[in-house]
Amino acid sequence: MTTRPRGGNVEKKLVGLADLVIAAANKKRDPTIHIPVRSLSNVRFNEKRRIIEMGDNTQERSFFNVGMAKKFMQTILVADALNELQRAALTTSLREIYYRTKHTIADSHENTFDTQDESDPIIEDLEVGLEALREELHVRAENGGTVIGPVVFEDDGDRVDCSRLGKGGYSVPSIVEEEYVRIKKCTADFVLLVEKGTQWNRLAEDKFWRKYNCVLLTGNGQPPRGVRRIARRLHDEKKLPVYVLVDNDPWGYYIYSVVKQGSINLAFESQRMAIPDAKFIGLSSLDPERYGLPRNVGIKLNDKDITRAKELLNYPWFQKKEWQVEIKRMLSSGLKFELDSLANKDFQFLTKKYLPRKLSEKEWLD
Amino acid sequence: MTTRPRGGNVEKKLVGLADLVIAAANKKRDPTIHIPVRSLSNVRFNEKRRIIEMGDNTQERSFFNVGMAKKFMQTILVADALNELQRAALTTSLREIYYRTKHTIADSHENTFDTQDESDPIIEDLEVGLEALREELHVRAENGGTVIGPVVFEDDGDRVDCSRLGKGGYSVPSIVEEEYVRIKKCTADFVLLVEKGTQWNRLAEDKFWRKYNCVLLTGNGQPPRGVRRIARRLHDEKKLPVYVLVDNDPWGYYIYSVVKQGSINLAFESQRMAIPDAKFIGLSSLDPERYGLPRNVGIKLNDKDITRAKELLNYPWFQKKEWQVEIKRMLSSGLKFELDSLANKDFQFLTKKYLPRKLSEKEWLD
Repeated sequence: MTTRPRGGNVEKKLVGLADLVIAAANKKRDPTIHIPVRSLSNVRFNEKRRIIEMGDNTQERSFFNVGMAKKFMQTILVADALNELQRAALTTSLREIYYRTKHTIADSHENTFDTQDESDPIIEDLEVGLEALREELHVRAENGGTVIGPVVFEDDGDRVDCSRLGKGGYSVPSIVEEEYVRIKKCTADFVLLVEKGTQWNRLAEDKFWRKYNCVLLTGNGQPPRGVRRIARRLHDEKKLPVYVLVDNDPWGYYIYSVVKQGSINLAFESQRMAIPDAKFIGLSSLDPERYGLPRNVGIKLNDKDITRAKELLNYPWFQKKEWQVEIKRMLSSGLKFELDSLANKDFQFLTKKYLPRKLSEKEWLD
Repeated sequence: MTTRPRGGNVEKKLVGLADLVIAAANKKRDPTIHIPVRSLSNVRFNEKRRIIEMGDNTQERSFFNVGMAKKFMQTILVADALNELQRAALTTSLREIYYRTKHTIADSHENTFDTQDESDPIIEDLEVGLEALREELHVRAENGGTVIGPVVFEDDGDRVDCSRLGKGGYSVPSIVEEEYVRIKKCTADFVLLVEKGTQWNRLAEDKFWRKYNCVLLTGNGQPPRGVRRIARRLHDEKKLPVYVLVDNDPWGYYIYSVVKQGSINLAFESQRMAIPDAKFIGLSSLDPERYGLPRNVGIKLNDKDITRAKELLNYPWFQKKEWQVEIKRMLSSGLKFELDSLANKDFQFLTKKYLPRKLSEKEWLD
């Protein structure tokens, strides 16, 4: 890791890390590894690629430094556990890695790790240090999100036809990399990524995906990595446009922006997760007027909303004129609107009126 | 609703409510409806049925009472929206019902509802008043939870074979009543309901369900109604025993107890949700010793844990000797253990050692 390895498989990278330590020990040198800096100062918006990405700053971690020795030892322990996962072809959670690597150091009362707060950052260090996505390191979260529509996946040898799963759908695993989930067939025209499960259920119940030939995805809030990655892969491999449907509030805007150019906190993953061509299909701050939503189904912006909206106005990726207008319109109206408020018109307003018009009139923001 | 209707379909019950109001108005009487009291004082543990259920206390709600008139009007509005769902064969969320019924009262600045806190209790009133489960009223939550294993559902005309859905599984809808989801076939020997998604993923990845011929369910924490109802239906219709696997802490015990005899807050639903024969398969406070878990992967009980555990000790349904011993053992050890801590032994300890031994030695609590 003194030179950051590129390419090659993850197991090799992890073994390479161990070799480095052994080689240094043999030469009686101080084993040292270089870890990219994961702070705001080392994150930037790449205007050309239109994603948030990490810069090149790194920090050293060496064994013969009193302040770093424990963290160095922890790094090697976690790398070893990750290697165990690779060898056995298993996946696991951040929390189980913490438990797996926790033990009392021989002849002492000291634990290798006291809390998960110590092991999580090390996994992130290794993720960026080895240039391996968390998923490639076989670290997963719980299933999160649901998909339905004319797409067939291959998962563990099974052919999962998401157009034949009723109104329930396929539960999206945390890890959907090619080696786990293959996209066998997809005849959809686009992907609709819906913020909330409620609206996803409406769309599923009304078989919206069949009439408009789309893949319906939800992550029940900020979409988890598996959902973002599936959307990205459908975009890349099947050339499908991705439309994002969220509440009209600063959090909705931000969910859209994370899908589009990645997040500040996990800038490293943008390269595999972000979809710079994703479109914002609503709710726009123009929609209450456009679709005749009464003011009393709007919710007054609170101080946190206003502060957050002003932060968004300053982000480089919200500098387009249309976006400045969009956000400022919400601020000056003093109101935010939830997707749920469309039900004020009619329970099926979303599927029968709102989305059909949005799609036919191409009413979206880029 | 002056006499609480029994049987008959939900639409009839809702129309019956309107008829009652019209009949009273025609006779120039004060329209009055009777709503069962939903407070702790009207909840009891039925020792014979082994479920938590509601008592018979009701309260009146009448139109010509200044203090009740608004609530009466709201009740009729919500009933009307629920009837709209029945007629159109639609389902929706609590939040959308709030939005649907919210409007400004003619010639006034007053809203029918100001917040969802006003409409939710009315839906619960109607649920108990009409003796119709929320699901029968077509009120749903988001999909919550996942299922995998040798069971075939019919959902919206599709045949969903949960043994052919890879490691992802079928996303459990909120409403799984017979009219929505039918159990077409099930060859499993038992249901394993796992508290956390992480362990569910471990079991799915290791194809535990195939080797031990079971249906694997998770609700990612306190199981939502759809997951509980699916477990109950598999228990009733397919005569499958249900084992519940939770963390060893007061919250894990409580999750088990809600699956088994229902919850205090929603006592009305126990009759359709509770599974009095469900078994607690772990983690037991005896397991750390029995399975050699080191003390340092236990977590010190905090004050809230201790208070909650003492509450549990007093619940009528935890009075069996074994349960008193179980809870007191946890309290005296001063430690709680998460399922995740089994990973300390080995990433596959849960599937290769822990559960196989539990099942073969019938190490569970009733």
